[in-house]
Amino acid sequence: MQFMKDLLLGYKMKKIIQLGLGNIGIEVIRQFLKLDPVVKSDFKYKAVMDSKNCIFKKNCLDDKDLRKLIDLKLSGKLDMSKYQHEKKKLIDSFGRKTIIVDVTASDETYPVILECLKNSGSAVLANKKLLAGEQKRFDVLKNASDSFDRIKFECSVGAGLPIIYSLKSLIKTNDKIKEIRGCFSGTLGYVFSELENGKKFSEIVRKAKDLGYTEPDPREDLSGKDVARKALILARLSGKKLELSDVKIDNLVPEKLRKCTVEEFLNNLSDFDKVFEKRIWKALVKDKRMRYTALVSETRASAGVIKADKYSEIGSLKGTLNMCVIRTRRYDNPLIIQGPGAGVKVTADGVLRNILEFKTSRF
Amino acid sequence: MQFMKDLLLGYKMKKIIQLGLGNIGIEVIRQFLKLDPVVKSDFKYKAVMDSKNCIFKKNCLDDKDLRKLIDLKLSGKLDMSKYQHEKKKLIDSFGRKTIIVDVTASDETYPVILECLKNSGSAVLANKKLLAGEQKRFDVLKNASDSFDRIKFECSVGAGLPIIYSLKSLIKTNDKIKEIRGCFSGTLGYVFSELENGKKFSEIVRKAKDLGYTEPDPREDLSGKDVARKALILARLSGKKLELSDVKIDNLVPEKLRKCTVEEFLNNLSDFDKVFEKRIWKALVKDKRMRYTALVSETRASAGVIKADKYSEIGSLKGTLNMCVIRTRRYDNPLIIQGPGAGVKVTADGVLRNILEFKTSRF
Repeated sequence: MQFMKDLLLGYKMKKIIQLGLGNIGIEVIRQFLKLDPVVKSDFKYKAVMDSKNCIFKKNCLDDKDLRKLIDLKLSGKLDMSKYQHEKKKLIDSFGRKTIIVDVTASDETYPVILECLKNSGSAVLANKKLLAGEQKRFDVLKNASDSFDRIKFECSVGAGLPIIYSLKSLIKTNDKIKEIRGCFSGTLGYVFSELENGKKFSEIVRKAKDLGYTEPDPREDLSGKDVARKALILARLSGKKLELSDVKIDNLVPEKLRKCTVEEFLNNLSDFDKVFEKRIWKALVKDKRMRYTALVSETRASAGVIKADKYSEIGSLKGTLNMCVIRTRRYDNPLIIQGPGAGVKVTADGVLRNILEFKTSRF
Repeated sequence: MQFMKDLLLGYKMKKIIQLGLGNIGIEVIRQFLKLDPVVKSDFKYKAVMDSKNCIFKKNCLDDKDLRKLIDLKLSGKLDMSKYQHEKKKLIDSFGRKTIIVDVTASDETYPVILECLKNSGSAVLANKKLLAGEQKRFDVLKNASDSFDRIKFECSVGAGLPIIYSLKSLIKTNDKIKEIRGCFSGTLGYVFSELENGKKFSEIVRKAKDLGYTEPDPREDLSGKDVARKALILARLSGKKLELSDVKIDNLVPEKLRKCTVEEFLNNLSDFDKVFEKRIWKALVKDKRMRYTALVSETRASAGVIKADKYSEIGSLKGTLNMCVIRTRRYDNPLIIQGPGAGVKVTADGVLRNILEFKTSRF
């Protein structure tokens, strides 16, 4: 009986290999530990790797191991470089039932993910870098995963919001994507909402940085490049072939301040407050709202500021919230998805949901 | 080589048995026929049944058969009662890889669906009746399908909008559902939008009927029962045990007109125009909008009119569009899904997407 059960369990059990143990990575494991035992019983963590460490157990990490791992990481005591040599063994073990989970922000994970896919494994990517890199790389991942049947990447755009799911699913049924428009930057949403409230651009940026809404260098957000990467992923998913350089980007960082240090940037930003004030008021008096959006149309992809009608879906979006408006041949009245598009909890939740979706897969 | 391919294909191929060949059923087949050949190659129609007919082929129906079937149905010439005796044979063939698709509005499909699930098959239900029937029946379906791993029912609420997907998925990761509020009746959305535009209740209802927005007897929509059924499904999915009679329903049909004929109902409805006019204006002067919503809270489920703030998500929803606002422990800022929640094309698309999701399943 037990033999039969093991055989059956062995058949079903999926093995998770997680790359990355930052905030999101830790939260994914925390949420995993709290899963309903029945749901959890189909999955085991086989390994967790970050840039320095590789914790790997042939018989998988149990809950105690995972808890200890988080404690060590949080107390700064995780230094298991002795495990480094295990990486080779780990890669050799890739196969059907392996799910590799990338919660890093690095593009160095590409070879190991590809290796996993080639060995009939699956992948969950929260990491945008791989999908927004070269088109060639995107195509390789697509082909190696049976047209993304074996890769899920919900959190690459809008965190846990079901944007990628919906788009993938509409494309499968041969619906024609006419336009995707969305606000995918909580930071830029915050900036424009605060500008509308009469605050000064330089003060808003400084506050956003203090609140942790921006990258350490806020110019990374203001440059629009992150939004452009998301537009690129959505465009490619809709079947377009293009590079990041083909995406028109509206860079909000004043040209003079693009090359200085972060401190200089912040100190001199107030010189441009008037420019932004003028732009926002020009829109407001016409009952328009400035929003930084990604656009994928039938012919192009871009990231930039639009003046949306005050009462339109995008115009009425407030603060850091994200929104995606998908128009297709069948969805003439668009499908709209809205909610928090960033944050550790919802992102980790999105990653975990993607992992659990492989529960019933035959690979 | 061909042998290997057949073996492999045989392993992967899923067999569709469709119950129902009304507008939605026909459109599902039409969209199926237009699928990308690679996507389609994993699926075959084994049988199509409606209340009178059962078209069944041991080696499955090919595209030509399916096209002919639609033509016959549309020209009213489908009368293959001689195939009736095949039903038994069909049921005996149920097993892993069988996907039974219910696009009827009947609750008589229950035994055959259960039979399919018990034989390791899967199901796609657009039919609300089975899930909104007795709690006991809901539980049986849940248990027979490994906690709904083998039943998909996106179109039971909000047509193809990813509401059920999102909710199922959040529950799997052990998020706590705090509140679900939604507008799930295009008809009632239309009625309240038109009331706001100053139109008369009786005229709106008559026009909605003429436009085909309502059931042949508009009281079925106005009674709120359809919305209550959707609230019930969402509540049960969130883990509550309750019957339709436990859902508080706000019936918009004036009491005096509940038992007369449809004609009498329509002719006498204008007696109540003033009542509705008064209600709507009372809301409007306070910057509120009347909306017929389903509500699932931690303690109850209901269907009724609320006065939503003009600028709130639900208050700003217009016309026949649907919306679902999901608040959970992790989604304190809610996840909002909006779009057309009815219509043949988007419903059929939703059904087909559910079918295709079984492509990679091991059953």
